[in-house]
Amino acid sequence: MTPVSSALAHLECSKCGSVLAADVIRQLCACGAPLLARYDLQKAAASLTVAELARRPWSLWRYAELLPIRDLLRYTVSLGEIITPIVPLAVIGGEIGVDDLRCKDDGLLPTGSFKARGAAVGVSRALELGVKAFAMPTNGNAGGAWSMYGRRAGIDAHVVVPRDAPAIHRYEMEAAGAKVTLVDGVIADAGKVVAQMVRETGMYDASTLKEPYRIEGKKTMGFELAEQYDWQMPDVLLYPTGGGVGLIGIYKGLLELRTIGFPIDRLPRMVAVQAAGCAPIVRAFDAGLRESQFWQDSKTAAFGINVPKALGDFLVLDAVYATDGCAIAVDDNAIADARRRVAAVEGMLLCPEGAATIAAAAALRESGWIRAGERVLTINTGNGIKSVL
Amino acid sequence: MTPVSSALAHLECSKCGSVLAADVIRQLCACGAPLLARYDLQKAAASLTVAELARRPWSLWRYAELLPIRDLLRYTVSLGEIITPIVPLAVIGGEIGVDDLRCKDDGLLPTGSFKARGAAVGVSRALELGVKAFAMPTNGNAGGAWSMYGRRAGIDAHVVVPRDAPAIHRYEMEAAGAKVTLVDGVIADAGKVVAQMVRETGMYDASTLKEPYRIEGKKTMGFELAEQYDWQMPDVLLYPTGGGVGLIGIYKGLLELRTIGFPIDRLPRMVAVQAAGCAPIVRAFDAGLRESQFWQDSKTAAFGINVPKALGDFLVLDAVYATDGCAIAVDDNAIADARRRVAAVEGMLLCPEGAATIAAAAALRESGWIRAGERVLTINTGNGIKSVL
Repeated sequence: MTPVSSALAHLECSKCGSVLAADVIRQLCACGAPLLARYDLQKAAASLTVAELARRPWSLWRYAELLPIRDLLRYTVSLGEIITPIVPLAVIGGEIGVDDLRCKDDGLLPTGSFKARGAAVGVSRALELGVKAFAMPTNGNAGGAWSMYGRRAGIDAHVVVPRDAPAIHRYEMEAAGAKVTLVDGVIADAGKVVAQMVRETGMYDASTLKEPYRIEGKKTMGFELAEQYDWQMPDVLLYPTGGGVGLIGIYKGLLELRTIGFPIDRLPRMVAVQAAGCAPIVRAFDAGLRESQFWQDSKTAAFGINVPKALGDFLVLDAVYATDGCAIAVDDNAIADARRRVAAVEGMLLCPEGAATIAAAAALRESGWIRAGERVLTINTGNGIKSVL
Repeated sequence: MTPVSSALAHLECSKCGSVLAADVIRQLCACGAPLLARYDLQKAAASLTVAELARRPWSLWRYAELLPIRDLLRYTVSLGEIITPIVPLAVIGGEIGVDDLRCKDDGLLPTGSFKARGAAVGVSRALELGVKAFAMPTNGNAGGAWSMYGRRAGIDAHVVVPRDAPAIHRYEMEAAGAKVTLVDGVIADAGKVVAQMVRETGMYDASTLKEPYRIEGKKTMGFELAEQYDWQMPDVLLYPTGGGVGLIGIYKGLLELRTIGFPIDRLPRMVAVQAAGCAPIVRAFDAGLRESQFWQDSKTAAFGINVPKALGDFLVLDAVYATDGCAIAVDDNAIADARRRVAAVEGMLLCPEGAATIAAAAALRESGWIRAGERVLTINTGNGIKSVL
């Protein structure tokens, strides 16, 4: 059998197309855009097959060829990243007129959110590249995850957090020994502080898309759901979109799998779901634009998607346009109602961001954008118990 | 291939040995002791094999032959019960002198605790048997899990909770539409209220071991860990013990698997870990007794193990004696220290009850009861984020 190892080939700029060697620490391209990991897909195809997958451990590490860590035995930093379940929401589906409504529950990952995917892969790769300390801005879940995984790797975490972010996240970061800095404002303000820290100290910038590997963890969401749907993809996939890395990652992952010959019938129409109080991607989509504008005075109780301007906005919009998807905003009342209703009839406690995708599914079905009989998948990005108190 | 179905044969009293038909609603035996599910193990062995397991979904439902639900297609109530990961704790292990220390993280289950196992199987079976409403006392996690799974099944939940239990649990129960009654005192006091409700209304009593199926869910912990250890069992297994159903379940599960021919080399020495402020099992063990006495004025910050007198105490002690195990109490300071330390060096946030097993491992290694070179498994029964605020 072909031995299993990463097929990582190089990094490629998502804007100017520059190609860079992968095995040194990299941040953004010189042109200012994110770098994406590219693989030798022919090499990956030699060992990553449907039959081979069936024999591998039931965790995100099963997709090793398409992950960027060269030496998994030495550098895997893991807290037990299980394949997250897809849970049918039959009652809610009936109520909103979607016969086949499901939810992939990423709240069951370590540290209670989908951020564990990015942290597991991102921190492992940082460890392999020799990173000793990193800084990042966070609305909470990413900071919690990177602090915990960072601690496990012996890498020092410096996290900068908007003062209003939920206390649970600060507790996690501090429990893991991270250096926490609070700032007034939103994540964009935290980002400015991080930029200055990085300039002054030279430490690794682990901000969203400013290092190339967090997205490689996120894309495993796409690998998993394709496998869980037995390659017969849902018609519509709704994703709560802040920085958008999950959506970009799923799209990237599905394209990679299809290219190496996995029998993916087609891509789902991808929907970027935002909060009415912070909807830059939606505004751009409605205007037919390929990039978003900074959203002034953003405000929503769904902290995870309070991102006024995402570095990867153009990649989100690319994925949405390429799959005939759309972008939609739902207001905080609709989010809270959906959250209550899903708990009350399905026995499932979603995070606000996950609940937003349910509210969006209802709105899109009502408008007719989601048609009768279509199969719809929502993503719950965090454990509902993290957003309770 | 032999079709897969439950090999449930009958119920057997754990004390007097009475045999009762399984397919009607049952509570305790007439003699007052818990009833245990017994299976046609020869029938189970025909389809439940190591080779067959490798082909099954990675969830606790993979052990269908040894679960009590007859019609899984109609009555499975699931929120996505993934196989929980076993995470190495190498740094802590080094610090306490245990070379191979690991933790099975049941905090990653739906509703954030191991109680999901009992609720998934217990509620599914209750649904199959026609139960419309149940009552139970709870320190929190069981009530949260049974409320959520109950809601999903359309079964009404009535939960009675000590007033001091963490608010997060009440939030969960109420979100799922459960009827919550608060009482002064500990779970024993809540139990009295439940007994009265059950007498007055005739509803199903879902109290620990007063129905026979919760333990059938819990035993999947044993199935999973045996499989995850590739049948080469750890030397020592430490379990945080309140009602003790998890420990009893693991023991029952391992014996069943071994009987049907799974290559389990031997059983681990099972350790019942309690809090110094509520240690009835430890006191009984130290005195060489087979049953415990009610622990007066019990008090510990590890709410899940504040159980002054467990109905199944004799079954816990049986398992401990039969495996050359022991029982040990650790105080709340040691629990808090272990919890902090595991987060600070392993990047893993345990619940207090899970942290107690780490403190106990340290104490038992120091006393020499755990010997150099032995492989030790601890169980984290709940998501650490549920015990933060």
